[in-house]
Amino acid sequence: MPVPDIVVGRLPLYLRALSQMLEEGKTITSSQELGERLGISSAQIRKDLSQFGEFGKQGTGYSITYLTEQLRLILKVDRLWDVALVGVGDLGRAVANYAGFQHRGFRIAAMYDNDPAKIGKQVGPFVIEDSAGLVVQVRRKGIHVAMLAVPAAAAQEVTDRLVEAGIHAILCYAPTSIAVPDRVKVQYIDPVLHLQRMTYHLT
Amino acid sequence: MPVPDIVVGRLPLYLRALSQMLEEGKTITSSQELGERLGISSAQIRKDLSQFGEFGKQGTGYSITYLTEQLRLILKVDRLWDVALVGVGDLGRAVANYAGFQHRGFRIAAMYDNDPAKIGKQVGPFVIEDSAGLVVQVRRKGIHVAMLAVPAAAAQEVTDRLVEAGIHAILCYAPTSIAVPDRVKVQYIDPVLHLQRMTYHLT
Repeated sequence: MPVPDIVVGRLPLYLRALSQMLEEGKTITSSQELGERLGISSAQIRKDLSQFGEFGKQGTGYSITYLTEQLRLILKVDRLWDVALVGVGDLGRAVANYAGFQHRGFRIAAMYDNDPAKIGKQVGPFVIEDSAGLVVQVRRKGIHVAMLAVPAAAAQEVTDRLVEAGIHAILCYAPTSIAVPDRVKVQYIDPVLHLQRMTYHLT
Repeated sequence: MPVPDIVVGRLPLYLRALSQMLEEGKTITSSQELGERLGISSAQIRKDLSQFGEFGKQGTGYSITYLTEQLRLILKVDRLWDVALVGVGDLGRAVANYAGFQHRGFRIAAMYDNDPAKIGKQVGPFVIEDSAGLVVQVRRKGIHVAMLAVPAAAAQEVTDRLVEAGIHAILCYAPTSIAVPDRVKVQYIDPVLHLQRMTYHLT
């Protein structure tokens, strides 16, 4: 029986909090402490983790290092995934400079844009490449993960080419839905989607 | 019985897709058509919507205008929420310029930063204000929603002030967890959280 997606979605939050605890010099934590940091009940955390195994002993808490390693294995970020960033406008540039990628399983490996004024320009360690060559290059580099930061109107066409290039997971920043084959995963980052999810609860 | 958060989280996706259909000139849709756009089964969509009422007749489909209005009511974006943006670095600037806010229930109403080099500068129609005045100004303006785009190290301190200022919902772009009272909602936007949720499924 597959683990519900809502549970999978909480694991990265646990991992992020555990990494912070490590940075703070902690070695042991509990579902209570983790829950307080995350605003999630300790019972929920124990239940989520129990879906994947036995990670701590009753009364002694979790070894942060061990639980971190296990979560990295489960989420498959014990390796480093190369990521293609398509669309290097304001948003793409901010994503490229995001401080949160370090040591979390991902590195940007190529950047593409179709704007002749941008192609060939340097962004950090990268040269922006012509998205006309995207399919061939992404396939040759063996990249399987992409971040899509193009305008909504271009999103589907670029998505089709990413799928053709062998991309298996797309993080879509364009404020639109994209259609992909079943084998390809999509997640959306659109501040309005997240804001609306909160205003539902407001009065 | 409250509607599960996972269901609430899909409503903004439905609303976004319906708005696009309206822009395309469509007037009627079906759970099948909506599902194909979103990669969600039509049964799931019907089940989700049924938690909130009866929005279409079997066989005739949904009136897009009507369903859009109803979803806007349910998500409380039939009104316009003022949003305070705190932290106007690369990411804050990109968020401020995001094209997806139009007609979706939110408008940035104030921007804050603590960097003297930024305070007083213009970003689009806004002047960046000193975050030292945040509590008083946010309260006076009656703003209840905030986007937090400050560095991780500053996130909790700014969060505490946002809560003090009467903020009820925080969209956190800082790559860290923030602690808030139960009455305050938090959503996180961190590309790595979303990427890890997908790599879980990859082989």
